[in-house]
Amino acid sequence: MSSEDKYEVVFFPHGRRDFFAPGTTLMEAADKLGVDLSTVCGGKGTCGKCKVRIDEGNESLGPVKPGEMRHLTKDMIEQRYRLACLVKVKNAPLKVYVPEISRVGKQRLQTEGLEVPVTPKPMVRKYFLKLPVPTLHDMRADEERLLDALSDQYGLDKNKLRVDYDVIVKDYLPIKLREANWEVTAVVWNDKVMAVEPGNTTDRCFGFACDIGSTKLAGFLMDLNQGKVIAVGSRMNPQIPMGEDVLSRISYVLFYGEEAQDKLQKAVVGGINEIIDECCEKAGVKNNEIYEMTFVGNVAMQMFFLKYWPKHVAYSPYPPVVRRGVYVPTARLGLKGHPYSQAYYLPVFGGFVGADQLAVIMATRMLDRDEITMDLDIGTNTEIAVGNRELVTCDSCASGPAFEGMEIKQGMRASTGAIEKVTIDPSSLELHYRTIEDAPAVGICGSALIDIPAELLKAGLIDNKGKFVEKMAKQTDRLRRSKEGMWEYVIAWAKETARVVEKEVSPGVMKKETIPGIDIVITQGDLRELQKAKAAMHTGAELMLKYRGLTEKDIDKFWLAGAFGNYIDPENARTIGMYPELPTEKYVFVGNAAGTGARMALISTEMREYAEEISRKVVYYELAVDKDFQNEYARSQYLPYQDLNKYPLTRELLYRLGRIDENNKWIYPE
Amino acid sequence: MSSEDKYEVVFFPHGRRDFFAPGTTLMEAADKLGVDLSTVCGGKGTCGKCKVRIDEGNESLGPVKPGEMRHLTKDMIEQRYRLACLVKVKNAPLKVYVPEISRVGKQRLQTEGLEVPVTPKPMVRKYFLKLPVPTLHDMRADEERLLDALSDQYGLDKNKLRVDYDVIVKDYLPIKLREANWEVTAVVWNDKVMAVEPGNTTDRCFGFACDIGSTKLAGFLMDLNQGKVIAVGSRMNPQIPMGEDVLSRISYVLFYGEEAQDKLQKAVVGGINEIIDECCEKAGVKNNEIYEMTFVGNVAMQMFFLKYWPKHVAYSPYPPVVRRGVYVPTARLGLKGHPYSQAYYLPVFGGFVGADQLAVIMATRMLDRDEITMDLDIGTNTEIAVGNRELVTCDSCASGPAFEGMEIKQGMRASTGAIEKVTIDPSSLELHYRTIEDAPAVGICGSALIDIPAELLKAGLIDNKGKFVEKMAKQTDRLRRSKEGMWEYVIAWAKETARVVEKEVSPGVMKKETIPGIDIVITQGDLRELQKAKAAMHTGAELMLKYRGLTEKDIDKFWLAGAFGNYIDPENARTIGMYPELPTEKYVFVGNAAGTGARMALISTEMREYAEEISRKVVYYELAVDKDFQNEYARSQYLPYQDLNKYPLTRELLYRLGRIDENNKWIYPE
Repeated sequence: MSSEDKYEVVFFPHGRRDFFAPGTTLMEAADKLGVDLSTVCGGKGTCGKCKVRIDEGNESLGPVKPGEMRHLTKDMIEQRYRLACLVKVKNAPLKVYVPEISRVGKQRLQTEGLEVPVTPKPMVRKYFLKLPVPTLHDMRADEERLLDALSDQYGLDKNKLRVDYDVIVKDYLPIKLREANWEVTAVVWNDKVMAVEPGNTTDRCFGFACDIGSTKLAGFLMDLNQGKVIAVGSRMNPQIPMGEDVLSRISYVLFYGEEAQDKLQKAVVGGINEIIDECCEKAGVKNNEIYEMTFVGNVAMQMFFLKYWPKHVAYSPYPPVVRRGVYVPTARLGLKGHPYSQAYYLPVFGGFVGADQLAVIMATRMLDRDEITMDLDIGTNTEIAVGNRELVTCDSCASGPAFEGMEIKQGMRASTGAIEKVTIDPSSLELHYRTIEDAPAVGICGSALIDIPAELLKAGLIDNKGKFVEKMAKQTDRLRRSKEGMWEYVIAWAKETARVVEKEVSPGVMKKETIPGIDIVITQGDLRELQKAKAAMHTGAELMLKYRGLTEKDIDKFWLAGAFGNYIDPENARTIGMYPELPTEKYVFVGNAAGTGARMALISTEMREYAEEISRKVVYYELAVDKDFQNEYARSQYLPYQDLNKYPLTRELLYRLGRIDENNKWIYPE
Repeated sequence: MSSEDKYEVVFFPHGRRDFFAPGTTLMEAADKLGVDLSTVCGGKGTCGKCKVRIDEGNESLGPVKPGEMRHLTKDMIEQRYRLACLVKVKNAPLKVYVPEISRVGKQRLQTEGLEVPVTPKPMVRKYFLKLPVPTLHDMRADEERLLDALSDQYGLDKNKLRVDYDVIVKDYLPIKLREANWEVTAVVWNDKVMAVEPGNTTDRCFGFACDIGSTKLAGFLMDLNQGKVIAVGSRMNPQIPMGEDVLSRISYVLFYGEEAQDKLQKAVVGGINEIIDECCEKAGVKNNEIYEMTFVGNVAMQMFFLKYWPKHVAYSPYPPVVRRGVYVPTARLGLKGHPYSQAYYLPVFGGFVGADQLAVIMATRMLDRDEITMDLDIGTNTEIAVGNRELVTCDSCASGPAFEGMEIKQGMRASTGAIEKVTIDPSSLELHYRTIEDAPAVGICGSALIDIPAELLKAGLIDNKGKFVEKMAKQTDRLRRSKEGMWEYVIAWAKETARVVEKEVSPGVMKKETIPGIDIVITQGDLRELQKAKAAMHTGAELMLKYRGLTEKDIDKFWLAGAFGNYIDPENARTIGMYPELPTEKYVFVGNAAGTGARMALISTEMREYAEEISRKVVYYELAVDKDFQNEYARSQYLPYQDLNKYPLTRELLYRLGRIDENNKWIYPE
């Protein structure tokens, strides 16, 4: 059915539809309809994450392109899978099915982090005032009458205070004071009266803290009088369709310019506003009772959110635009709080090390300790800091998105059906796995991607270089060659992954449908990606220690931060050499420290000063200038490390399992 | 000629024309076409200032209304004069002639005031910076690099400084720095980098100071490095059509609401922007090289300009909205300076005593002196201050617009053809007058309105109660009864006032035309108005002295301020008792001190602090609470005063001229 030479495209299971002109890519169509479709590369045809099944009209799209071939198996081509970013509407209507693995999806979001006790000392305070009525003997200006009362009744410094211009002009202060019969509540932010409310509203004073992750947004509505969280909400970062990782998003801005920058900013603010509305709804708070907001996130998130031009942080020497904490009126950013409220974005460091890492240092009080502690905040960029009260240094390493399921053949985010835990019995080679919500497996997420190499290593299915030990194929049919002749290992069999889904067959009519299963495997290539990722983190940690003249023995505590850090098996991570080897009890999870930091800064101006102090004092160390980088990176690709003597606990385990001899040499089966 | 039941109205000599629906008043039509038409009452038909002559179509307007009758003489009615606010378009096209006296007109504007030497210490400073290029060993953020350079190269306190959000975001700071090859000029306002310009622009740093008078606007473009005025411009305040005095304008806002408030604000800003453009043109300066602006004006001007709701200052106890100095971004006010520049409106006092009076106190340094000085700033509201370093008090009296030519039968503003100077020989009774630009007389302006009662008094044509001495009519035919039977005195005869004007007979075709002359007279009613006005000023001064326990003998200097003050004959003003009697040498003209104050504040932050100090320290005294007000006002209506012993110099003069006997009794001719 066509309308003015356009053809209808329907996306399932969403059921969204519209007419599109020939030449429109399916990704553009999905974007326009708000259909949630995954992409890492931002639509360049390189990541292969936007696989869709063409249920009607596939023949009109022409033969599969070479670019698609790289990402589609023969099975998939037979099942009419295509890459949405590479195929274009031509001359027929289309029915497009978006499989679960290609959706951004409903993911598990860890929002709460370490709760650090902080005495509330918010920047926003409310004061109830009974003002004297003007007379011929007291003709003070309305503004002065208000400020005098704040000074007389509460001891505020009148000469520092001022009333916001908008309160006087837009809110008609003179009328407001008289209508309220001179009994009002002044809302004071910093030295500014940012609002005047009739009557006594001092018991209702709220703020909003938000962690802007590249992947997820976590928001906290807080009672500023009490310093307590009263509602929590979270969302996927709506910027994801414009690039899954920060570099893709920066490329997107650099390619499409100002408009794209605007789109990214509006996307994230839209997501935050949804969280604000949800939290307000939950807690019975009105938007204009939110008098301040604080934000944390990495440097790229800072730039997208505040609309800083992000080009130069993407190129050596990676300078950010602004390091210090920044106040911007929420209205300028489009946020749904009190119209005259301010947003505070916590300070960042250099490179990509942002307010999230600062929050870790803040929450752990690393800079106030005598003993040396170290932290690792695992992500696409992994941030590392080490030190004590004398000096804390930090760096960032581009560990890539492998542990977020990207660049892994069947990798996925931690959403329903993701394999999140894997164990292999080292002698029987029996495998067990667990999926999120116990749904039929659809892919492998980050925590399992740490388990798998560790379990394969312990089982002798791979060696310490991460290579499949081919002879082991005799002992388990899970280890096999793919149709393309590459070695791979089956985590879940097709029969276990078949599942029933509800499908919208016509508008409003749902029908159950069984999706046939596929084998979920880990390939030699996947292992390579994971090794590169963990090697990057390890290199960052090792070089940082070396730079500081320290070894892992000097570390008193090792903080594992980040939402992801909370889900991993710290011993498996240690077994593959994701970080320096320490006794298990020295690893401490601090969870989503970023959110913790945002909350601390929201309820306490002292914490903001502390954040600024951290940002000033902590020294950023750029790994790229370390001459030993390449060598250390090479050594770190071994599992767990080239020199096993740095990993005595793992060495002992592998020796016990018969994987290595007394000279640390790998023992291959006959 | 009609178009869809509308009728064409053409205004001469402007030549502007359009079609209007029946029911449209001629004032509304004039307003819509931007035809400059005088009004005091804001269109209520009470002031009679909007007289127009209907050259075609008068019969369609129907008979003269009772409201018009009050303001039109028989002659005028015969000549088809009508009040523009009371007559409406009906069923025929109209040709309307706006006589000069009904136009706001091109007036003489005194813009310069006292030049007080002030060492430049502007809030805006420019700093040329050569920034180190980022490297892997120097990855500082762009903002920090800039602030560090300001700190290292010029000793500014980096921790207090910040870069304006707009400079970073809207102006793309990161791109700007790189395109300028890291050599830039930072424009620092207060603690904020408000602009970053490529290369070295330190020699171009400008500001704009403006005196917003109810009647006129005076603007000064200044070089902030030098502290020198480089261009001057002035305009009539475009708010005049919405009410000639401030109370009419406030009524206008209260009647029409927000829209009218907006219109008043846009009108004054439009006028200021014209002055800015004119000054920039003259001096070769670009708008965005104006980095700061300062403004002064009375309290009503402050309110209209900043959009404060003006209702309550118009009602007892007359509290202003904001007393202290106010910073507002120029962009929010619509001003044409640098987009991120700030406007500073100097502090005001209470009641109607505004930043203009503050400027007088600032320019005269009244508050720093040991000796007592007093000032009088003559206007529709006359402001008075007295004191020394121990205490300065000020008040304001509603002297009315009589000395601005309003409420005077043939009064007018100081524009072309205005009689500005009058002398009468006390013995021969011969009269001489002078007009502005020596044009044929069209009316009488303020300075002559002081001369006339003084000269009439000295000549014995009026007595000390201001009444015409009827018997003197025998000695001069200038003193006569009007057709209505009221006494009046002819200043200029009709034959002297006839004049030739250019008239547009058809579009673009000008024709010279002789306008027949009329007698220009001063009536008993006019004298009454002038007495009331001068009595109000005198009462303000007397009560202020009494309140302070002082007499005129304690006054060391008497400052005469205001543009008008500059034009008056101080001895004639003293003769009629406009202010306390002092030896002539104690009267000092300070001219348009308001403009001086705005300039002082623009070039020196110390002067701003001084202004705030003055605003805090000077005590406002409300005359309305003084129980002696009515009695003193009655005594002050005498010329010069009921008790001549307070006016020994005038007493002696009148005695010498034979007007009074040794007991101060008026001598009437036989």
